[in-house]
Amino acid sequence: MKFPSPVSLQWIATLINAELLGNSNAEATGINEIHKVQKGDLVFVDHPKYYTTCLNSAASFIIINNKDVVVPDGKTLLYTTEPFEAYLKIVNHFRPFNPSKQMISDSAVIGESTVIMPNTFIGNHVSIGNNCVIHPNVVIHDHSVIGNNVIIQSGTIIGSDAFYYNGKKDRDVMYKRMQSCGNVVIEDNVEIGANCTIDRGVTSETRIGKGTIIDNLVQLGHEVVIGKNCLLASQVGIAGATTLEDGVIIWGQVGITKTITLGAGAVVMAQSGVTNTIKGNKVYMGTPAIEAGDKRREYVWVKRIPELWKKVMES
Amino acid sequence: MKFPSPVSLQWIATLINAELLGNSNAEATGINEIHKVQKGDLVFVDHPKYYTTCLNSAASFIIINNKDVVVPDGKTLLYTTEPFEAYLKIVNHFRPFNPSKQMISDSAVIGESTVIMPNTFIGNHVSIGNNCVIHPNVVIHDHSVIGNNVIIQSGTIIGSDAFYYNGKKDRDVMYKRMQSCGNVVIEDNVEIGANCTIDRGVTSETRIGKGTIIDNLVQLGHEVVIGKNCLLASQVGIAGATTLEDGVIIWGQVGITKTITLGAGAVVMAQSGVTNTIKGNKVYMGTPAIEAGDKRREYVWVKRIPELWKKVMES
Amino acid sequence: MKFPSPVSLQWIATLINAELLGNSNAEATGINEIHKVQKGDLVFVDHPKYYTTCLNSAASFIIINNKDVVVPDGKTLLYTTEPFEAYLKIVNHFRPFNPSKQMISDSAVIGESTVIMPNTFIGNHVSIGNNCVIHPNVVIHDHSVIGNNVIIQSGTIIGSDAFYYNGKKDRDVMYKRMQSCGNVVIEDNVEIGANCTIDRGVTSETRIGKGTIIDNLVQLGHEVVIGKNCLLASQVGIAGATTLEDGVIIWGQVGITKTITLGAGAVVMAQSGVTNTIKGNKVYMGTPAIEAGDKRREYVWVKRIPELWKKVMES
Repeated sequence: MKFPSPVSLQWIATLINAELLGNSNAEATGINEIHKVQKGDLVFVDHPKYYTTCLNSAASFIIINNKDVVVPDGKTLLYTTEPFEAYLKIVNHFRPFNPSKQMISDSAVIGESTVIMPNTFIGNHVSIGNNCVIHPNVVIHDHSVIGNNVIIQSGTIIGSDAFYYNGKKDRDVMYKRMQSCGNVVIEDNVEIGANCTIDRGVTSETRIGKGTIIDNLVQLGHEVVIGKNCLLASQVGIAGATTLEDGVIIWGQVGITKTITLGAGAVVMAQSGVTNTIKGNKVYMGTPAIEAGDKRREYVWVKRIPELWKKVMES
Repeated sequence: MKFPSPVSLQWIATLINAELLGNSNAEATGINEIHKVQKGDLVFVDHPKYYTTCLNSAASFIIINNKDVVVPDGKTLLYTTEPFEAYLKIVNHFRPFNPSKQMISDSAVIGESTVIMPNTFIGNHVSIGNNCVIHPNVVIHDHSVIGNNVIIQSGTIIGSDAFYYNGKKDRDVMYKRMQSCGNVVIEDNVEIGANCTIDRGVTSETRIGKGTIIDNLVQLGHEVVIGKNCLLASQVGIAGATTLEDGVIIWGQVGITKTITLGAGAVVMAQSGVTNTIKGNKVYMGTPAIEAGDKRREYVWVKRIPELWKKVMES
Repeated sequence: MKFPSPVSLQWIATLINAELLGNSNAEATGINEIHKVQKGDLVFVDHPKYYTTCLNSAASFIIINNKDVVVPDGKTLLYTTEPFEAYLKIVNHFRPFNPSKQMISDSAVIGESTVIMPNTFIGNHVSIGNNCVIHPNVVIHDHSVIGNNVIIQSGTIIGSDAFYYNGKKDRDVMYKRMQSCGNVVIEDNVEIGANCTIDRGVTSETRIGKGTIIDNLVQLGHEVVIGKNCLLASQVGIAGATTLEDGVIIWGQVGITKTITLGAGAVVMAQSGVTNTIKGNKVYMGTPAIEAGDKRREYVWVKRIPELWKKVMES
């Protein structure tokens, strides 16, 4: 999330009750979680395992629970014993949860010739383009951005909260929600089926590219990025921060793990499980998914085990 | 879809700006996509790969982008450079999208002792029989036909649009929706769980047979036909135009591909993937699904590979 | 289900038109299906296959369609030709289906600082604690009990009817719904994602333990019990009467069969299928799920079949 305008580090340090280590006159332009962090951003880290990643990331300002680490050149640390609570405080300040009591929020902007059918909820600061059809019983959460000629079928949820938690075993509440401040962006000519769930970005955006078509009961995690002209069949699930490049085709009930990339034109056969980044313009199959030709040969080999056994017994 | 009454080919040719080749005095009784086409129907074809199939189908009238093919005996061609656009024009003429603004459309007919719970949307020309319970937040789209003693649980969508598109890479909009003019027919004593999605037929009907019971989060594609007294457990997905005969049992998370048939009394174990037509009265397992006994033996053989390896190494 | 107060067997025998065999002066304290039956309960059995199980269960009173079985010491039989119909009569007497016509039932109790967003249905006798957020288009069915600090995301259904039927091939209606009289109990600090379906207990309760976090499109069957601080990722499905002990982690698209137990701290990798009770504090993978290390070794062995074949051919 970018702040509406740059914010002085001194002000943030006061808000979260942190001690500044390094250049204290800088200004932060936003806050992001580690996968999406950019120059000018704040990031937080509370586990030594991730110190190095965060200190070496693009983030300019690191909220951290250790004051003995070396401050990287040109960066500033904000020391506090509870970096996660500090993160929540900043997010809640800039993007407070302000639940709309109306079916269609006054702050929503809806384009010409767009049809909103009954029972659909449209949250605060949502923007919908022209010539869209939003079917009944859809939910579009705050800050979603939807282009032109988009169809969203009945019962679909746009911008639900991510399955993204800060876990600590020795705390009264073990898992604490990482308050989302991101959103969902749906480009022109996208069509989304019925009863899908599209989580919003935790700190950045979940994006569906122009002309992509999605079937029913599909799950897209936070910060998933889908390219242009992709096809996703029914009951597909894609975990957080994974990227599908343009023209990817995913058949039914496929699962795709988090933070990987599927190259342009890749095709994944039904019920496969994609566990690693894969190259484009090839067909994949199985769990874990491998190239379809290799998988088919593997099936043949498995069926030949009895024959092999017989040969060995007879030799 | 059948037309309300037969329509002269001359009138259709004018509507879609096509040239008639063959008997131009005939009348068309309906329009259907290739899987469901009948005598008297129009069908369209725009790819040379499918010319022969369409010309030899039951269709009497073929909308085609090639005037040099041989007109089959007793049939008529309607030549146009854009058969898909012509199809859309005909469908939109006879079944225009006319979104209801009411929760329950005035043109819906609801039987005696049927309970419609709050927040449920019932579209135009829907018919619901007697003694049904339609739970909250259900969506029943236009032209659905529901029998007596039917239960539809909360959040389920009946008659969503099919995942069925005309794709062309060299066009500004690569995938264009095949406008659906079919519907969903649910026979007596059917029960459907929560948050399911039942797509309507693209040009024909999706049908659920008498006494069939469906669990939660199940997906049925367009033109799927389910027989009588079937059981479908949670999270099952069935792709377009597939048929389940009577008494089929499908356990949880099974995926079934398009345009195949599962014989009467077939049982498919959980998480299987059915990729081909299968015979009735047998049990199937695995992806691709094979007879359960064969699959179990395969598991045992895989576990014996290390033993086999040892034997070979020692010999 | 426990009755509001103990009920005389004589009264029940009259209600269901049954003959009492054994001590006819006793009082029943409730009715339950066989998996959840307790001392003082009624249970019914109509198939000889289950006679022994029911007669030897904790149930004090057995509704049965055979008067020639030996009455166990201290128990009473209620003989009728239709035990299932008798069960339905008792359940409908004590927990009749009384559909609320309001969005939020007058008999629902909602705690302080709890936010109920638009389009959400809350049924009769529902109880919701303090500081909860119930997002739009949620359905919470009758008798659900929800603790404090609970978040339920959009489109989720709490307390849907179980996929649990009495099947008889020679009857006009082959499958008859086992009328549910159980409920759903959600403890404090639970968070449930969007478009989930949580069935209520058939006769007992479906329970989600304190601090458990559930992602989108998850299915929990009737009488499932989830412990404290569990994580369930998207599109997981858990069949009826299965128990997850504390701290279990289930990754995406996993299926878990009915009436088994997953030990505390068990972890199940994505897309696995759990078919048997498994021990805690281990990682599982595959369908059927086995320990992850064993499964990974199995994958390696399958890939070595061609090499093995070559060795055998060369020897």
